[in-house]
Amino acid sequence: MSERPLILISNDDGINARGLFHLIDCVKEMGDIIAVAPDMPHSAQSSAISVEKPLRITQHKDYHTAQIYSVSGTPVDCVKLALHAIVVRKPDLMLSGINHGSNSGNSIIYSGTMGAAIEACMAGIPAIGYSLLDHSPQADFTPTTGYIRLITRNVIKHGLPKDVCLNVNIPANCQPEGIKITRAARGHWGEEYAEYTDPHGRKFYWLTGHFVNEEPESDETDIYWLDRKHVTIVPARPDQTATDTIPDITRLIE
Amino acid sequence: MSERPLILISNDDGINARGLFHLIDCVKEMGDIIAVAPDMPHSAQSSAISVEKPLRITQHKDYHTAQIYSVSGTPVDCVKLALHAIVVRKPDLMLSGINHGSNSGNSIIYSGTMGAAIEACMAGIPAIGYSLLDHSPQADFTPTTGYIRLITRNVIKHGLPKDVCLNVNIPANCQPEGIKITRAARGHWGEEYAEYTDPHGRKFYWLTGHFVNEEPESDETDIYWLDRKHVTIVPARPDQTATDTIPDITRLIE
Repeated sequence: MSERPLILISNDDGINARGLFHLIDCVKEMGDIIAVAPDMPHSAQSSAISVEKPLRITQHKDYHTAQIYSVSGTPVDCVKLALHAIVVRKPDLMLSGINHGSNSGNSIIYSGTMGAAIEACMAGIPAIGYSLLDHSPQADFTPTTGYIRLITRNVIKHGLPKDVCLNVNIPANCQPEGIKITRAARGHWGEEYAEYTDPHGRKFYWLTGHFVNEEPESDETDIYWLDRKHVTIVPARPDQTATDTIPDITRLIE
Repeated sequence: MSERPLILISNDDGINARGLFHLIDCVKEMGDIIAVAPDMPHSAQSSAISVEKPLRITQHKDYHTAQIYSVSGTPVDCVKLALHAIVVRKPDLMLSGINHGSNSGNSIIYSGTMGAAIEACMAGIPAIGYSLLDHSPQADFTPTTGYIRLITRNVIKHGLPKDVCLNVNIPANCQPEGIKITRAARGHWGEEYAEYTDPHGRKFYWLTGHFVNEEPESDETDIYWLDRKHVTIVPARPDQTATDTIPDITRLIE
């Protein structure tokens, strides 16, 4: 039996995304790789799972020594089904990405990249989501390599705190200045929908807009440091219970 | 201009679910109601949003004095689009549900009911998700009425802590014993997929399984109290940053 770490890789941009294969290239020396990705892009799928339809698994041609599979579902479906039906033992590490585009600020709640990492974390597997701040399918992933290797190697060596995974963002088109471990910036989306009228006179809407950072001056946030060309790491916890507010809520509900 | 609170209601079981109309019945005396629900069931959609397709809004016949709309998207799409294109002012309260089925333990991360409530919370609107522990379309919602009125009335009166929403579960087929404000139980899903073979000899998989509570003896958890016929309230926070672990992660990434 191999003593190399078993690394499960997924993403939300789908089985054909270049970011997936760059991520495999970054870490292929560190362990045995199994990649299980959606059969088509599934951006902004959060932790959605398929309950109303069956799922299929398709095995593709190996990429170097990595085994490659696609699943006809969401990023979280990929992780769940990989653990149920593909891997022969529990992976030592799960990596998600490299996402084509940012997953920063509190809008990471919509991220399929982080949905997959959070799912692995809930299954007790150290997990990291990687994103590059460039949406283009032709994005240049080269400057990410050193940082991805450094962070991944440290997580393999030291593990992560229980029930915590990492959300890593990497600035685009530059050699980053360094790494900051920080929290997600608070913000909201402005001008969220484009409005159209169809040929029959009925309105329809398409999601668009831009993230409005509500705390642009705070050097405690990921977006502050991404704007200053740093790689950011935000530790994230699947459990959303606001435990500290239980006494307040108890007083409120008389 | 009306001085009654404006209450936005959504759900994840869709525009035809009985739970939606029972929730309207519970609170219709407390404010002006606008319900905006998915045009079909969207269970387990978490905070997923539609980025790759257009969305339509359809107005339906009023229910009592409530305005009723459907949206061709996810629960979070409903909330976003309601705020963008339907309501004329920011709602004073957002309610989600009543979900047909439990949203308890750490598997609430998959919940579309809570996805909608969390979206409203991120938009600065006090929000509550309500779920009844009965999946049946014919579930008896009668025992929920008094509790929903009590909790909703207190939140209208006192508000909620900033960036916190409530996840309320109500036991089925009984008159509940009381209310517990608590945290989400830790657990995982066991035997997650049923396996089939199609007529052409190819395997396919369908999500199934059951929640395995990893801390059944802990009286600090929602599932403990639901098992003991209590209504549970779990305060939830959209921001998943594990701020307390930032020093640990900083040491780990050298």
